[in-house]
Amino acid sequence: MCQDCGCGDSELVPVEVQERLLAANDRTAAHNREHFVEHGVLALNLMGSPGSGKTALLEATARWTKGRLRLGAVSGDLETDRDAARLIKAGIPARAITTGTACHLDASLVHHALHEFPLAGLDVFAIENVGNLVCPAIYDLGQAANVVVLSVTEGEDKPLKYPTMFRAADLVVLTKLDLLSHLDIRVEAIEDALARVMPSPRLIAVSAKTGAGIGDWLEWIAQRRQKKVA
Amino acid sequence: MCQDCGCGDSELVPVEVQERLLAANDRTAAHNREHFVEHGVLALNLMGSPGSGKTALLEATARWTKGRLRLGAVSGDLETDRDAARLIKAGIPARAITTGTACHLDASLVHHALHEFPLAGLDVFAIENVGNLVCPAIYDLGQAANVVVLSVTEGEDKPLKYPTMFRAADLVVLTKLDLLSHLDIRVEAIEDALARVMPSPRLIAVSAKTGAGIGDWLEWIAQRRQKKVA
Repeated sequence: MCQDCGCGDSELVPVEVQERLLAANDRTAAHNREHFVEHGVLALNLMGSPGSGKTALLEATARWTKGRLRLGAVSGDLETDRDAARLIKAGIPARAITTGTACHLDASLVHHALHEFPLAGLDVFAIENVGNLVCPAIYDLGQAANVVVLSVTEGEDKPLKYPTMFRAADLVVLTKLDLLSHLDIRVEAIEDALARVMPSPRLIAVSAKTGAGIGDWLEWIAQRRQKKVA
Repeated sequence: MCQDCGCGDSELVPVEVQERLLAANDRTAAHNREHFVEHGVLALNLMGSPGSGKTALLEATARWTKGRLRLGAVSGDLETDRDAARLIKAGIPARAITTGTACHLDASLVHHALHEFPLAGLDVFAIENVGNLVCPAIYDLGQAANVVVLSVTEGEDKPLKYPTMFRAADLVVLTKLDLLSHLDIRVEAIEDALARVMPSPRLIAVSAKTGAGIGDWLEWIAQRRQKKVA
């Protein structure tokens, strides 16, 4: 639980405790990864701020692929199963993972969820993390790729101010493109910021509302699925 | 540091370590509070998601009060001093607190900043926390009140999904009201969600762009300042 943790107080949490935590998480993540590989499913860790549009991106993905892409998902939140309910309504088999007070998913929470979740027959398994632009980046869940969902309403400088997250990103999906004309925000400035922190900068701008850019997102998924199989 | 912490892994972090962390933080917070009371300054802990508009709210506050309200601020981010630079440009004396990888401010970080920050002559000292809708709520900084900044673009259900933050809130400032007409969002739904988690629900809707609601926000500050002195 986050209220019990040592976030920011590294001098008080013994180093051996810190290392044991992450080592244990990495072992469980490796185990999850075996499950995903065994079933030939592309596992994506969707991270981003609260309200950045992670659930809406998955809803749009289901809407645009009309069942041709077999999706499954788990949705992390402190409380409620609202995101999972939205995904189920959109035709995506989904489970909620409620974390209580924890600000991120960990490999063990995902592993428990997998026990109740049939991966067989899925193309993509989306792990929708708790809305948080910091901590989720630290915990490997066994995913094949990290997708950071950033909305245009969050401003141009988030990659510079929250670099841990963007350094870990394989792809940034820039959402709510339909709102861009109402904002003093330039996509080029976001691209410039990403180029300064992201190891291999890759940005796809989308609107879940209008469908703009969803084709590029589906193409990226298709390429990652091929890469995984190759 | 967050990558070293036990967020969500309470079974691995010894209880006595967890308790020592928060007890040490509370002692430093009490010390900070003495500083604020001694100088008759209203200290506000501004929390909210990345990009929710915390800095923009302070900029608008300076713009609308034109020096009549003497503001000072510290701005927490993992990296960069961009928010502090924006505040200084807006006429607010400000310092950046860079947390490295930590996802929240703690009382000690604020205390160190206070050593370099003259409180004398200030009316309001704003502590702009790291953008995060979870962990900052747990750490007392010595503030007189918690202000949660939530933007209309984040959706209607954030209070239900991130209740820890809203349970600790004395006020919710709903920002980016100018974007409301472009969204499928109802303020009443946000109010309903707040009523279910916030001990004394209080919401002020504002637009830092148009100035709508800024008068109500200034009135709330004036009332809190009186309350503090009374």
